[in-house]
Amino acid sequence: MNNQLIDEPASVFTEQIIKQVLQSWISQNRAVTSFFNKYSDDAYLNEVAPGRNRAIYLLGHLTATNDALLPLLGLGEKLFPELEAPFIINADDKAVGDIPSVTELKQCWEVINTTLTAHFSKMRAHDWLDRHTKVSAADFANEPLRNKLNVLLGRTNHQSYHLGQLNFLKEK
Amino acid sequence: MNNQLIDEPASVFTEQIIKQVLQSWISQNRAVTSFFNKYSDDAYLNEVAPGRNRAIYLLGHLTATNDALLPLLGLGEKLFPELEAPFIINADDKAVGDIPSVTELKQCWEVINTTLTAHFSKMRAHDWLDRHTKVSAADFANEPLRNKLNVLLGRTNHQSYHLGQLNFLKEK
Repeated sequence: MNNQLIDEPASVFTEQIIKQVLQSWISQNRAVTSFFNKYSDDAYLNEVAPGRNRAIYLLGHLTATNDALLPLLGLGEKLFPELEAPFIINADDKAVGDIPSVTELKQCWEVINTTLTAHFSKMRAHDWLDRHTKVSAADFANEPLRNKLNVLLGRTNHQSYHLGQLNFLKEK
Repeated sequence: MNNQLIDEPASVFTEQIIKQVLQSWISQNRAVTSFFNKYSDDAYLNEVAPGRNRAIYLLGHLTATNDALLPLLGLGEKLFPELEAPFIINADDKAVGDIPSVTELKQCWEVINTTLTAHFSKMRAHDWLDRHTKVSAADFANEPLRNKLNVLLGRTNHQSYHLGQLNFLKEK
């Protein structure tokens, strides 16, 4: 942790900005949730566009990515480590075998997001500006932007990115 | 402007967080630029997926949206107001007639982003937390999150959203 940052009192500005960044993450997170509550489960077995990933696969990918935030932000172990192999390591819908059902993935999605939101609500500005667990203290001293806030901003964009693709899905 | 915010000195925290939010916008902006420098101009005349908008159309839409940030953030008039009708008001590729070429749109994209970046580099935390021009002072007093930072976060997600769709484009 950078001592200069610990010593700096969080201002009204700072807390409001953090709140807004968090709100941006939540808004994209909820948009994904709404998308997967829009149709019957069967609809999500379709590819979002011809030859592209199925919606169910993108749900698994987004769930596994959000789950990975727990260890990356130092908040604990993954809740669903079994999702990593099919949805992050492979990253190719056509290459994976059996995957959980839409219902099961939606449950995982809800649990991980509720867990993250509970952790995020307790984090203050200095927590967000601290290093994430994939960067060493030595590297962080040289690259102070490799912090938890940077991870959150990146994952917010990641949710938007796949949401744009999901919205190409046709129901039938 | 909220006097409490004017009186609050910007902390090390605050400026770093603003810098990171801005960096997130810039990263998505540059990813769009890279995408449109990847193929020959003709490739962008294809639909990003069957029956969906052409890549050229999404470039026009993103350009017009970024151009609209100038008046919305109180930074000046739009540079390319003629892009609003085909790319924002219609918002349907199939409903518009003649549109500028890929080369022309890429030039507009560069000009508007260079202009925005120059403005953004001069804005401090209290500027970002001030109201945007579509909200009245009275409404802002009740809804202080309707500020310029919120607009920036939203437009960052907007770029990611369409980038996800653009990356479905097949070159030939």
